[in-house]
Amino acid sequence: MPEPIISTVDIVLLIIKDDRLCVTLSKRDKEPYVNQEALPGGYIHAQDDRDCLDAAVRILQQKTGLLPPYLEQLKTFAGAARDPRGWSISVVHFALVDADLILSATNPGLTIWPVDALRRLPFDHNEIIATAVERIRNKSQYSSLPCYLAGETFSLPRLQKIYEACLGETLNKVSFRRKMDELGVLETVAGQTESAGAHRPAQLYRLKSEFKNQLKLLVRGL
Amino acid sequence: MPEPIISTVDIVLLIIKDDRLCVTLSKRDKEPYVNQEALPGGYIHAQDDRDCLDAAVRILQQKTGLLPPYLEQLKTFAGAARDPRGWSISVVHFALVDADLILSATNPGLTIWPVDALRRLPFDHNEIIATAVERIRNKSQYSSLPCYLAGETFSLPRLQKIYEACLGETLNKVSFRRKMDELGVLETVAGQTESAGAHRPAQLYRLKSEFKNQLKLLVRGL
Repeated sequence: MPEPIISTVDIVLLIIKDDRLCVTLSKRDKEPYVNQEALPGGYIHAQDDRDCLDAAVRILQQKTGLLPPYLEQLKTFAGAARDPRGWSISVVHFALVDADLILSATNPGLTIWPVDALRRLPFDHNEIIATAVERIRNKSQYSSLPCYLAGETFSLPRLQKIYEACLGETLNKVSFRRKMDELGVLETVAGQTESAGAHRPAQLYRLKSEFKNQLKLLVRGL
Repeated sequence: MPEPIISTVDIVLLIIKDDRLCVTLSKRDKEPYVNQEALPGGYIHAQDDRDCLDAAVRILQQKTGLLPPYLEQLKTFAGAARDPRGWSISVVHFALVDADLILSATNPGLTIWPVDALRRLPFDHNEIIATAVERIRNKSQYSSLPCYLAGETFSLPRLQKIYEACLGETLNKVSFRRKMDELGVLETVAGQTESAGAHRPAQLYRLKSEFKNQLKLLVRGL
């Protein structure tokens, strides 16, 4: 067997804040790049993890306190030059969660940055985030993916803002609502409305249970 | 650093044969599953490979004699259960080539199977191939991807057959030609036609050079 290769999982944890698509970074507690902000990540643990998704769930839980949100494999970044420790593989996943879950988390090591205003990050993390944003952008065009950023209940104007943040463009209200009808993933929340400043109250919606992913915040981070 | 993990690259090498989408398998020369047919693959060599794509090119060349055809990362398959040797990662790529290059290859260890008529293969290779077919199917709907299966020059009826094999459905001739016009990747080959049995000769096309990938067959396999 050839020489061992560093095998890790990194997670691009995305939220919407101030109507912008943002990424959650975590302060590194080890060398290299100790104390610098980077994507939450860690080694695969052959003893504990059944597969990569399992590793991503464990690492996300340890670093952010979040239990499995919407999580999908993005791409694998690998090579001789990306990590000063040696040849490394990172199987990158992206996760979408409601911002409130991050903002209410007690983990002081987490920070939030708009994806289009990032400083230079360690490793190839800028490139990884750019790839994730491109994937989200593409998928938002034809899927209910952005709904996972919207929290438990939301108005259609709010959901439209989220889609717009993902797509990087404004949408026509009528055609957006038609698209949502087509998708068929939403249901109204009986009797619940959102007051929207000077506007009339907006009906609240949620994902139908069959399209809902399991998401929970640990009372205290691990 | 935790215990080492087996780090490999596998390649789903696809061609069209008898108007069917087929995968090229290679006889394994090592345990586990020695002498069984499986996807061409191998260990990442930290000393030789700059990155995963580099590893895929090297392995494909060693096992099939093919120099870089159209090659794209598919997905990473990883876990404790997929390889009897232990926890393993396979960064899977897919490659599309003209069937003639495989059929004229002198490597006796290569065999060709329709993707929808595969026996049970070693590891999780059936699942990997199914994932590749799904990706090709999706991408064929909106890209020039199937052109890489068509060889140097081809008629539009031939290219339509290839698209149909990728998509798993028949296409309307008029709308197919309109789509190809829209894509704008083809150019006519001056004066060249293909005789098509009882039909009148068909104009030959090729990929415009800016949409062409580099592909070569070694005179003798390595």
